[in-house]
Amino acid sequence: MNLLATPGGLARLTEDGDDAVLLDLPFGDVAAMLAVGEGFAPARAARELGRVSLDGLLPPLRGARAIWGVGLNYRCKARLTGRSIPVDPILFLRSPSAVSAPGAEVELPSDRSSQVDYEGEVAFVVGRRMCRTAPERVWEHLAGVTAANDMTARDVMVATATPTLAKSFPGFGALGASVLDLSTVADPANIAVRTSVNGTVRQDASTEALIFAVPELLATISRFAVLEPGDVVLTGTPAGTGQDREVFLRPGDEVEVSVAGVLPLRTRFR
Amino acid sequence: MNLLATPGGLARLTEDGDDAVLLDLPFGDVAAMLAVGEGFAPARAARELGRVSLDGLLPPLRGARAIWGVGLNYRCKARLTGRSIPVDPILFLRSPSAVSAPGAEVELPSDRSSQVDYEGEVAFVVGRRMCRTAPERVWEHLAGVTAANDMTARDVMVATATPTLAKSFPGFGALGASVLDLSTVADPANIAVRTSVNGTVRQDASTEALIFAVPELLATISRFAVLEPGDVVLTGTPAGTGQDREVFLRPGDEVEVSVAGVLPLRTRFR
Repeated sequence: MNLLATPGGLARLTEDGDDAVLLDLPFGDVAAMLAVGEGFAPARAARELGRVSLDGLLPPLRGARAIWGVGLNYRCKARLTGRSIPVDPILFLRSPSAVSAPGAEVELPSDRSSQVDYEGEVAFVVGRRMCRTAPERVWEHLAGVTAANDMTARDVMVATATPTLAKSFPGFGALGASVLDLSTVADPANIAVRTSVNGTVRQDASTEALIFAVPELLATISRFAVLEPGDVVLTGTPAGTGQDREVFLRPGDEVEVSVAGVLPLRTRFR
Repeated sequence: MNLLATPGGLARLTEDGDDAVLLDLPFGDVAAMLAVGEGFAPARAARELGRVSLDGLLPPLRGARAIWGVGLNYRCKARLTGRSIPVDPILFLRSPSAVSAPGAEVELPSDRSSQVDYEGEVAFVVGRRMCRTAPERVWEHLAGVTAANDMTARDVMVATATPTLAKSFPGFGALGASVLDLSTVADPANIAVRTSVNGTVRQDASTEALIFAVPELLATISRFAVLEPGDVVLTGTPAGTGQDREVFLRPGDEVEVSVAGVLPLRTRFR
């Protein structure tokens, strides 16, 4: 099941992916549903209320509280940039106020940055509370998978020395367009992600190539901080960001992040 | 008005401070009430439901989403540690899962840190959305003030190079015990904070002595990230933490952070 936040409420994507079926659920978004701690069960049990279009989708994880990210987590990215493989994951939080909707038009903060970059990523949503969770128990604590555009103002990152500020501008955390029930994914350790900019594929990888795989990455976070149901963890971006070509986002650009099984996440820039 | 989260619901502290009056409000905590964007108005208009004790208080800001903090923001702390005055505030987020209740017993993560430290601070709660807010407009966007114990695992901070991990252990974000209506504070730029450890005063300062005063500090954050109603900003800790004496918290220690006008915030360690 693939869940969407529509103006009329939560909905499941139809099999052909052309429209959605509204569900009789009392949650404002998918994060609120998962915060209950029962994964996708409430959606599976919900009464269906009729078809709705995919126009005007809302952020399915707007209510997420902790949104974790990780620096340099693909070998291809390390190779390309000549950076050494980190010994521990480089973890950070972004402000939840930065979340943007699927299809959103995000304003480039041109007076503060001339180096805004996209980062296509696979993101996971926590389904059960994780505290010092062993790597081999991580998968059973995760509920959903989605696409993320983990946008970064590269120059702000250099100037402030913290990803938190460089990644918290309004709209810089695009998540969606749908949230896929992870229990229906055949191989959760091998999820493809592809990023296109104005129709040209710029990133193409799979979580199979992560330096810190999902079990290790989330186990590490849970040794420091409790991960709560509805929290989101982004897994890092592969080679092919604008930084790698020294080309940054300009008004009019459109970025699409496609994660296998998830409705593609589009963001336009102005 | 001074609000508390009691097991029976939100309550206002009585004038003598010995007990509280339960209010007929539909909010789980003070953050949820402030998220509505009407400051303390719902509490002022609420029907009173009778007296309740101050036993078993809940975290009044348990639902806060963004919890911002700032490194080195008191001149006395800079002087004592020999560090230079920062040019810009050193900003970070902690995981909202780290929030602990007034009177909580927090477990020292002894297998991960032998240098857990207290940091008594004055914290502000946002009342109205702030996006690129000018310093002179900051005060009108703030709704509440409270005490914070911004706990830090000093050795984890050195090892991971990020305050986010060093400050996100379970219970490391103590906030409360009450949230005071900022509109009733005579001089919001001069709020006293005092920290005692096992009854001995270790920190004693006022926000008058901040390097980045509240208007500048919050205006700076809002140039990067939108601050939403219910978000919390900690303002930094004065000289006198355990680090300054190379004495860290041990099981059995009790820390009390007193912020003028706010019910003192106590935390015990085990």
